[in-house]
Amino acid sequence: MKDSVGIVETQYLEIKKPFKLESGKSLDELTIAYETYGQLNQDKTNAVLILHALSGDAHAAGKYHPSDKKTGWWDNMIGPGKAFDTSKHFVICSNVLGGCKGTTGPSSINPKTSKPYGFSFPVITIKDMVRAQNKLVEHLKIKKLLSVAGGSMGGMEAIQWIVTYPKKVKSAVIVGASLSQSAQNIAFHEVGRQAILSDPNWQNGDYYDSGRRPFWGLSAARMIGHITYLSEQSMQQKFGRLLRNGAGYTYDFSTEFEVQNYLKYQGKSFVERFDANSYLYITKAIDYFNLDYDKAAEAFSKSEADILTIAFSSDWLYPPKQVKEVVKAARQGLKKASYYEVKSDFGHDAFLIEAKKQKPVISGFLNNQLKK
Amino acid sequence: MKDSVGIVETQYLEIKKPFKLESGKSLDELTIAYETYGQLNQDKTNAVLILHALSGDAHAAGKYHPSDKKTGWWDNMIGPGKAFDTSKHFVICSNVLGGCKGTTGPSSINPKTSKPYGFSFPVITIKDMVRAQNKLVEHLKIKKLLSVAGGSMGGMEAIQWIVTYPKKVKSAVIVGASLSQSAQNIAFHEVGRQAILSDPNWQNGDYYDSGRRPFWGLSAARMIGHITYLSEQSMQQKFGRLLRNGAGYTYDFSTEFEVQNYLKYQGKSFVERFDANSYLYITKAIDYFNLDYDKAAEAFSKSEADILTIAFSSDWLYPPKQVKEVVKAARQGLKKASYYEVKSDFGHDAFLIEAKKQKPVISGFLNNQLKK
Repeated sequence: MKDSVGIVETQYLEIKKPFKLESGKSLDELTIAYETYGQLNQDKTNAVLILHALSGDAHAAGKYHPSDKKTGWWDNMIGPGKAFDTSKHFVICSNVLGGCKGTTGPSSINPKTSKPYGFSFPVITIKDMVRAQNKLVEHLKIKKLLSVAGGSMGGMEAIQWIVTYPKKVKSAVIVGASLSQSAQNIAFHEVGRQAILSDPNWQNGDYYDSGRRPFWGLSAARMIGHITYLSEQSMQQKFGRLLRNGAGYTYDFSTEFEVQNYLKYQGKSFVERFDANSYLYITKAIDYFNLDYDKAAEAFSKSEADILTIAFSSDWLYPPKQVKEVVKAARQGLKKASYYEVKSDFGHDAFLIEAKKQKPVISGFLNNQLKK
Repeated sequence: MKDSVGIVETQYLEIKKPFKLESGKSLDELTIAYETYGQLNQDKTNAVLILHALSGDAHAAGKYHPSDKKTGWWDNMIGPGKAFDTSKHFVICSNVLGGCKGTTGPSSINPKTSKPYGFSFPVITIKDMVRAQNKLVEHLKIKKLLSVAGGSMGGMEAIQWIVTYPKKVKSAVIVGASLSQSAQNIAFHEVGRQAILSDPNWQNGDYYDSGRRPFWGLSAARMIGHITYLSEQSMQQKFGRLLRNGAGYTYDFSTEFEVQNYLKYQGKSFVERFDANSYLYITKAIDYFNLDYDKAAEAFSKSEADILTIAFSSDWLYPPKQVKEVVKAARQGLKKASYYEVKSDFGHDAFLIEAKKQKPVISGFLNNQLKK
């Protein structure tokens, strides 16, 4: 397909030096898994760093093999002529610190013990993730990023980029994210974490070599997550009260409604591709994220970055109200922030689905950045 | 206190005859736990049947002993001079079929085996609950109820009363309830049920004599429930990002945020008072509840009952939109239905909390019914 980045490969940056964390603890070494799409120009001024959400990874676009059924997680947004246009931009995406897709995380081997870290992995923050990403940007010898861009947790990372590296970011695209994780969102995460921690197969986080994994706990966490990613409207439209067998109630506890089936499927397919400990650590990092309005405005004022925010009308995880707070704080500090609300029934998931509606506004925004 | 119903006692109606269920199965016998407050008048025309929600019971008002710290679950609404005024009305409340507070449910002894039913208990519906309540009303020799009233699942029962016994109800007070359980609400219930079913201590529902109970599963289900009972606003106001120790992040997975602590407490205290199997059966009954708009309007048209509905502005479990559907269907059928929206930040829980705001409208409505 001519709008695809084509066949891609994950690369690994290995840093054999201690990496200090916000908690005060350190990692002895750090591996960062990343992919790039498009060409870095001679001045190195066209790099866009894509930041993934909770369950994402470095594989944002393209396929590993021509026979792959699935493309990268934001393939509808990244490619020639797409929102993140690889004919103009050099797009980078790396797996976050704490992840399970190549970047150092709880399932990685602890060089001290030659065993997986498990629950001995130190707690990380969004700032730690961003500082790890910066190591990659330094490695690629990019002095200033044309843009940092992400949805959900990725949007929090984008905000953190401006705060931590105010002079290294020319612009930021912040999609469906907030200045601070709300009590309700902490609550949903907490129930998911408790499901994992209470799963007998979690084994205090040391399950990697046991032949048993906390599938149930992780799948429950994912089911809860999925309810929050969809909207009430989209669930009603997609499933309503549809029965799987269509023939009436079975009067038992089998998987009877389509919506039950969907959730179970989401839970089941997730455990095959994601590590339960990474889920614990990454949700904790999100819950820790907290820039209050004044702190954010002050931090933003130290940067000259232009900001584009996008919210989705039916997103109740990071609702328009919360995205507007980002814009308000940014405007107070930067005076260059815009807000775009996409009308969508897809809830929070819209940031992954509504590519066509996001494209014109992101394209226009990034084209302006290239010209400046 | 002069506005209290005082010291009360739970009574038991034992029906030693088979009770047929909507599923086609039967229970060999049926016990109904109930309480009454106030005096039944000579004509037996002042009886109000209170219908409880998922985790409620027959103990709606007063105390069992003067030293009890806790009163019945709707004590702020039931008593002399209160919304359900026991100086005028004879108030009845019974534990629902499938419950665990005296009425026959999965923890009851199966007369066939002399052991608790456990998971061999038949699946029940809201209609079955209402038909069991009608047995009690018959026992009390009440021909027509002045009103049936309840919030949440109790509101669904009130709707079902009009449908099943159109001539036996003079009026209904339906609070925070819908004509049909939404996909999102089924989804939340399903994750809670899966938590119970996956708890190794659940033991296929046969845990009563094992010394182990599915505490974790039930507590997870309750935690999820509690998030849906509160509103995003009330959680933010009540907890926000408050830390338990107040001194900054601990960088571990302990109970760090107040909102985590609250949820854990809610989960923990619930498992001490509620049976996990009852949770499975009652949530399933709620999920089965489904009167589409046309069916409801037709059913309502066979009754002469006046209907009062109450919704809460921040209720996202049974939001105003869904309560308005009840009114619409009722108006089409009955032409006598009113809608009252209480402005409240308490979410769905408002039906238990906002007694003062509900009182005038319920009092006025019931006084009119008494006069008719």
